[in-house]
Amino acid sequence: MLPGMEATKVRAMLARAPGLTAEHVRILFALTGGEPNFDRSLLQGVGIPPAARAVLQSPQSGELSRDLRWIERSGVQLLLCTDPSYPPLLAQISAAPPVLFVLGSVEALHSPQLAIVGTRSPTPAGRKTARDFATELACAGLTITSGLAVGVDAASHEGALLADGLTVAVFGTGLDMVYPFANTQLAARIRERGALVSEFPPRTGPKRRNFPQRNRIISGLSYGTLVVEAAHRSGSLVTAKWAAEQGREVFAVPGSIHSRLSQGCHKLIRDGATLAESPADVVSELQIPQCRQRLTRRVIRRGELPALDKEYEMLLDALGFEPATIDDLVARTGFPGGAVASMLLILELEGCVAALPGGCYGRIPK
Amino acid sequence: MLPGMEATKVRAMLARAPGLTAEHVRILFALTGGEPNFDRSLLQGVGIPPAARAVLQSPQSGELSRDLRWIERSGVQLLLCTDPSYPPLLAQISAAPPVLFVLGSVEALHSPQLAIVGTRSPTPAGRKTARDFATELACAGLTITSGLAVGVDAASHEGALLADGLTVAVFGTGLDMVYPFANTQLAARIRERGALVSEFPPRTGPKRRNFPQRNRIISGLSYGTLVVEAAHRSGSLVTAKWAAEQGREVFAVPGSIHSRLSQGCHKLIRDGATLAESPADVVSELQIPQCRQRLTRRVIRRGELPALDKEYEMLLDALGFEPATIDDLVARTGFPGGAVASMLLILELEGCVAALPGGCYGRIPK
Repeated sequence: MLPGMEATKVRAMLARAPGLTAEHVRILFALTGGEPNFDRSLLQGVGIPPAARAVLQSPQSGELSRDLRWIERSGVQLLLCTDPSYPPLLAQISAAPPVLFVLGSVEALHSPQLAIVGTRSPTPAGRKTARDFATELACAGLTITSGLAVGVDAASHEGALLADGLTVAVFGTGLDMVYPFANTQLAARIRERGALVSEFPPRTGPKRRNFPQRNRIISGLSYGTLVVEAAHRSGSLVTAKWAAEQGREVFAVPGSIHSRLSQGCHKLIRDGATLAESPADVVSELQIPQCRQRLTRRVIRRGELPALDKEYEMLLDALGFEPATIDDLVARTGFPGGAVASMLLILELEGCVAALPGGCYGRIPK
Repeated sequence: MLPGMEATKVRAMLARAPGLTAEHVRILFALTGGEPNFDRSLLQGVGIPPAARAVLQSPQSGELSRDLRWIERSGVQLLLCTDPSYPPLLAQISAAPPVLFVLGSVEALHSPQLAIVGTRSPTPAGRKTARDFATELACAGLTITSGLAVGVDAASHEGALLADGLTVAVFGTGLDMVYPFANTQLAARIRERGALVSEFPPRTGPKRRNFPQRNRIISGLSYGTLVVEAAHRSGSLVTAKWAAEQGREVFAVPGSIHSRLSQGCHKLIRDGATLAESPADVVSELQIPQCRQRLTRRVIRRGELPALDKEYEMLLDALGFEPATIDDLVARTGFPGGAVASMLLILELEGCVAALPGGCYGRIPK
């Protein structure tokens, strides 16, 4: 290929070169004064792997034409690693993608991001935790980045949207499809309130090996990665590992020692991740100036909630997070049955407890 | 007092001297060649505080006679900090007690100890965790040391007894009473299978300020301190703080971020305590040679438990640790209602789930 080639075509070619990294492209362009020059000896000298060299020197013109047609039609933007619009944190990681496909707002990629990831099959409580953390952290000014999977990923994106916050979904496929299909509507909303991002060219289907590789972009875009529920061999641990290798913060939400889905998080904490009990833990550890003030305000607002009376607190403590009958609670607190029943009614109205079938009561996490 | 004074009387006097530490006594005895010499200028030279000097120079003979009568009657042993029978780990801490009253087995104080402490009002799950950890760690050869309080302390002592293991209770009162009274029977069993220990002379009632001070002995006797459920301002955190200051290991059991009683544990983990998900985590971190082999054997035995079928695992995952009806589970798993019902029955027989009132099912922690 020759100097003067059209910029989009160059980017589309670079995106199709297997094993090509941002480092390669930066060196190549530094040597050529920014002109695309795919001379064989030059490519070899820069250490570009043979498969990438082959694509750059003799691109499959049919594939490339289809790519260019989709690029034109979809309005996707192709950020080159040497562009000022390329996300600066991602540019710092090793093996950063040379080209990033973006649908939606490129600005969102320049806002401070926190990755929230976790299992595809969370417990109801885990799903709520992901959503609540995302909502509160989006309110605190963080953009929530995740992988659009079902479960914790989807709940995190949704939590950010709920707060009218920004959210970024990193695809493991080309941006011309949505995987999993069930999240098509969610992807459309994310595109409007943030960005869809991929390093993979169009028509790249869901291949198992691409997802761990994709995860380095989720962590690489972000100041930190928060893991909400993950089993022992979860893909979320891969994202956390990337984050640690990239020198970014890793956070994990603890849970019951009897829950299989907390084992991954506990392993991370043992390995040095910060235990995140609340969104405030994340923000205070990250120390991003533009988030700090907003959080302080929220914390104060929280502190203003009216305190429960002592007896109500005792009753809630006695109830714990497992279902109990009024008789159980009478035995545990020593309060008369009638008092327990009326206190439960008030707590139910306040949304602190739920009546369960069979006269049981369960506490609702705040 | 003069040289040649009866040894027990000297010890009883030293035990009544406020603010006197093992360091004082070691220096004093080093200067006098081991002879008790309570000369004013000598005591002053060693830096013994005035209140202690006053007691040593003019003991209240009525009090002392009553102490000596109780010592004779109860069979209590008084370990002096310079005795070879004084617990060696306790001897290392700063402000170690000069005299230790012991009812039961002095040998137990020379076995490798782990402190297990926590809230006086645990959740049912927390109580079970304390008991189970104590049982398994006692099986692994550790002596379980705690404070005989209701709640986590009592459950820990009981867990050790359940395993026919050794257990040590450190009192915040004199050994001539049991506080709380409710644990009188438990104290009697501990005395038989371990030891009751106090630095306080007889007729020292339960005073609020003595308990935090007592906690330094719990941690000081032990290679490490494990905290099972503790609220934010729990006395257990005092014990953990002592342990850290004494250069001992601190372990904490994580839990739901919505449980007030996990907040103290999470704070400890954030401050550097080791997250303990299982007894094996404690043993592997402590690296006490005499425990290692026994644990390995148990871990192997655990690995031999038959694996659940995939469908049963899916059902248990769908159930989680919150109560659910069969309809909930049908919706979550897609299994037919009849299949879910019969699987639940089998899981109930296997002790994996419990039927709750109102047709709900709850998972039982293993």
